[in-house]
Amino acid sequence: MALDQRLSSWQEGTARTAILDFVERITRPGGADFVPAAERIATFDNDGTLWSEQPLPGQAFFLIARVEALAAKDPSLRERQPFKALLERDLKTLHGLGKQGLAELFFSTHAGMTEEEFAATASAWLSSAEHPKFARLFKHCTYRPQLELLAYLRQSGFKTYIVSGGGVEFIRAFSSEAYGIPPEQVVGSSCRLRFELDDNRASLRKVAELGSFDDREAKPQNIGLHIGRRPLLAFGNSDGDLAMLRYTRSGRGARLALLLHHDDAEREVAYDRDFRVSPLAEALDRAADYGITIVSMRRDWRTVF
Amino acid sequence: MALDQRLSSWQEGTARTAILDFVERITRPGGADFVPAAERIATFDNDGTLWSEQPLPGQAFFLIARVEALAAKDPSLRERQPFKALLERDLKTLHGLGKQGLAELFFSTHAGMTEEEFAATASAWLSSAEHPKFARLFKHCTYRPQLELLAYLRQSGFKTYIVSGGGVEFIRAFSSEAYGIPPEQVVGSSCRLRFELDDNRASLRKVAELGSFDDREAKPQNIGLHIGRRPLLAFGNSDGDLAMLRYTRSGRGARLALLLHHDDAEREVAYDRDFRVSPLAEALDRAADYGITIVSMRRDWRTVF
Repeated sequence: MALDQRLSSWQEGTARTAILDFVERITRPGGADFVPAAERIATFDNDGTLWSEQPLPGQAFFLIARVEALAAKDPSLRERQPFKALLERDLKTLHGLGKQGLAELFFSTHAGMTEEEFAATASAWLSSAEHPKFARLFKHCTYRPQLELLAYLRQSGFKTYIVSGGGVEFIRAFSSEAYGIPPEQVVGSSCRLRFELDDNRASLRKVAELGSFDDREAKPQNIGLHIGRRPLLAFGNSDGDLAMLRYTRSGRGARLALLLHHDDAEREVAYDRDFRVSPLAEALDRAADYGITIVSMRRDWRTVF
Repeated sequence: MALDQRLSSWQEGTARTAILDFVERITRPGGADFVPAAERIATFDNDGTLWSEQPLPGQAFFLIARVEALAAKDPSLRERQPFKALLERDLKTLHGLGKQGLAELFFSTHAGMTEEEFAATASAWLSSAEHPKFARLFKHCTYRPQLELLAYLRQSGFKTYIVSGGGVEFIRAFSSEAYGIPPEQVVGSSCRLRFELDDNRASLRKVAELGSFDDREAKPQNIGLHIGRRPLLAFGNSDGDLAMLRYTRSGRGARLALLLHHDDAEREVAYDRDFRVSPLAEALDRAADYGITIVSMRRDWRTVF
């Protein structure tokens, strides 16, 4: 592919150049920074990095749909927090729960389902649920420049992974279709699974107990557990991604750590320090010290969706 | 590849036929049992399935080497159990520890190392340590029929995984070279990893706390967590693999669950119920009920190593 056709939704500038230069360095046979294809791992956060997380991550809307279904059977839920806040789209209360609070609530409402039942429920929701602001299916609220970057990395021999604070099974329900990333390359927050045997049929059932909340230090820890290689490239958008970015950046040889700054109120949303669910503050202030390349949505992306 | 060249170390018979028929069914385009390549997952136990686990799994010998190094600094270890049993190759005591006991002891002796330090230590040991009975490097104690099967499955579009009770980082240190299975396709027992920052350098350090002992029910649970798809084919050799085999076998459509029976005292070892580290009893007695195909090392393999 010609240089100027790759990353065509990316504006010429330092971020795009940093990406192209980095991939050129690690793929040039015989070059000082060459890395064999089998060792090329790239990890991406999901919410706010690959798709929009405003006004809340997509999973929170799926959670609302699930609580609505539960409240139809048990109306008392409508008066109990945090269900009340969910059903009334009370963003202030919901933001106050933070990402872990939302994740735990999410898992609690899916306890008792087998992994197949959950996958079917999530797929059904994803095939019809629309984003309240962008008027398109949630699974189409992915960022076009990032889809190009994922494709470009894979063409360059990378294995692309998602490493997200979102629920792992929820992301797996759309990651192949939306990003070309198969389920086994998704790492996320997880609840525990119970192994069950019923009349010689074995299954895994979700239980309401947190396995891992895949945020901050847990991201590199889970990369160690699931992948077992330090990534060459990592991309995030909040302080929750900082440990993953610094872990990636401090590996030997050429590494690239990228951070998306949502500074585009016109085409998406402008936010950073003020977003309680997943704030961006330290990463923004210390990017230079930590060797992190900032990507400005407004300046670096020609197109968002 | 011609039919009679594939699996050439496998004797003609029910096991070989079951494998070839199964792969033919799931790869035939338009066939009733066709599965797209992206969904073809095969999982293999390691100790006793891909390489020899007698008189003890390879990891136990690495553990002995590690305890010898520690005892050189602290001679009092030589008189303390279970270190004494390890240093004296007291198999009876060691077998009594069982697989989990050995795994926990293993992790305790590697606490404090970063993942890179551990990988270097394990690689150094693997490059020189020889098996006491088979007089070859441990990493060459792999079974030739299984290497052929792994290659045949990959040629047929499968992603091949190891799902082992052994330590995940230890297996990752040789899985690419020995089996063509990259680190990110190894699931195993694990200790917790601590994220550390030292002068702007981030690393993961092993701590002496068990994360997961990947045996029995934990095998399908970890398949759910790491892979997120029910395997089409699974291969084990002990009751510790039974949950994985039954989980695989009870998926929809064509599935194949295989169990290696070590009944070859002449070329390897004959054992099953009597092996305390990892016994084979229920799986052998109930194979027919559970839809598991038994592979006899003596009858089904032309060559072992």
